[in-house]
Amino acid sequence: MSEIVSEEPEIDTNTVPDIVVGRLPLYLRALSEMALADKHFTSSQELADALGISSAQIRKDLSHFGEFGKQGTGYAVLGLRDHLRNILQLDREWPLIVVGAGHIGSAVANYTGFAERGFRVVAVFDNNPARVGDGAGTHTVYAMNDLNAIVEKYKVRHAMLTVPAEAAQTVAEQVIAVGIRAILNYAPTTLAVPVGVHVEYIDPVLHLQRMTYYL
Amino acid sequence: MSEIVSEEPEIDTNTVPDIVVGRLPLYLRALSEMALADKHFTSSQELADALGISSAQIRKDLSHFGEFGKQGTGYAVLGLRDHLRNILQLDREWPLIVVGAGHIGSAVANYTGFAERGFRVVAVFDNNPARVGDGAGTHTVYAMNDLNAIVEKYKVRHAMLTVPAEAAQTVAEQVIAVGIRAILNYAPTTLAVPVGVHVEYIDPVLHLQRMTYYL
Repeated sequence: MSEIVSEEPEIDTNTVPDIVVGRLPLYLRALSEMALADKHFTSSQELADALGISSAQIRKDLSHFGEFGKQGTGYAVLGLRDHLRNILQLDREWPLIVVGAGHIGSAVANYTGFAERGFRVVAVFDNNPARVGDGAGTHTVYAMNDLNAIVEKYKVRHAMLTVPAEAAQTVAEQVIAVGIRAILNYAPTTLAVPVGVHVEYIDPVLHLQRMTYYL
Repeated sequence: MSEIVSEEPEIDTNTVPDIVVGRLPLYLRALSEMALADKHFTSSQELADALGISSAQIRKDLSHFGEFGKQGTGYAVLGLRDHLRNILQLDREWPLIVVGAGHIGSAVANYTGFAERGFRVVAVFDNNPARVGDGAGTHTVYAMNDLNAIVEKYKVRHAMLTVPAEAAQTVAEQVIAVGIRAILNYAPTTLAVPVGVHVEYIDPVLHLQRMTYYL
């Protein structure tokens, strides 16, 4: 659900631990880079070197989903990439909304890295009437009143919240009410959400503070 | 060093586990919010409810740094906040540079949330001569040639990299060469850095992909 909040969970035979799921997108990203570089085969050791994760961990993580590697040749890059895409349900494009059309909201709405990795921003919202109708980069800013209609039209399940911390909980409740089930929260505050709604957080200051401890 | 890459490390009597250090900024953020709301005392249970971390975990994490809570009254909000600031070396202001003056770089350079949490952006750099001298919000864009002089002048140790993935490794080496020891990398790629240099990553797509698994 959030940043570094839980110990390694118990392994249940029916479910894959969250921490393993959390690493799959990293494997996918590394494999996609290899595919772009026309690399055909890789090994858990090579992935380990690229990602700073142990090769034993990588083999163990992938073993949750079946037998991928072959003795001698290793992993087929395209095959494993497509398998991971499939497991993560990224073999389709997911529509995405951004709420909050400030600096950060406009920047992420126009981030070009979404398309090739399974997502597409379909609308940007703001509660400031003066911003509505404006451009947030290539997107038009919609009023919060249009939230329900657009989420329904595009069957949106993902939202990025780029609103001030004080507004984040209220906005989270608004997007959940219209059907959003996955929230990426850029506001520096923890959200309370019902079971079945997933939240992840981006707060650059937390990362900077973590590193400062070691300086 | 990076996102969700390692198992819970062994507890060494001399060092605090990275995963515990990783949670301290979350506790600090929650305590700072409570202080702003004029709250004087809190409990591990209240922090647990606010953060979605177990109260036992919170008590265990804080016990690495001494005895903070008092039976009956709990934690003094301001006292614990200041203690955490001290542990994390945030009782001073750290200068910070941003490399890459695109949409994301300009947005983070102008993020207002740094100042009250220990950081201040002192310069934005770009390798595109056409961008140099331009404004990235309230900042002037500097040429990469000025990197060394500015890092020395302000004794900068932290850099945020907001450059394309292809450029990230080269830029990381450039900033490390002039003395940067903590890198927050917004480029969607894993960096190879020498021992003693810390890297954390922000890649919104990884977070979106993690949640998509559960939808």
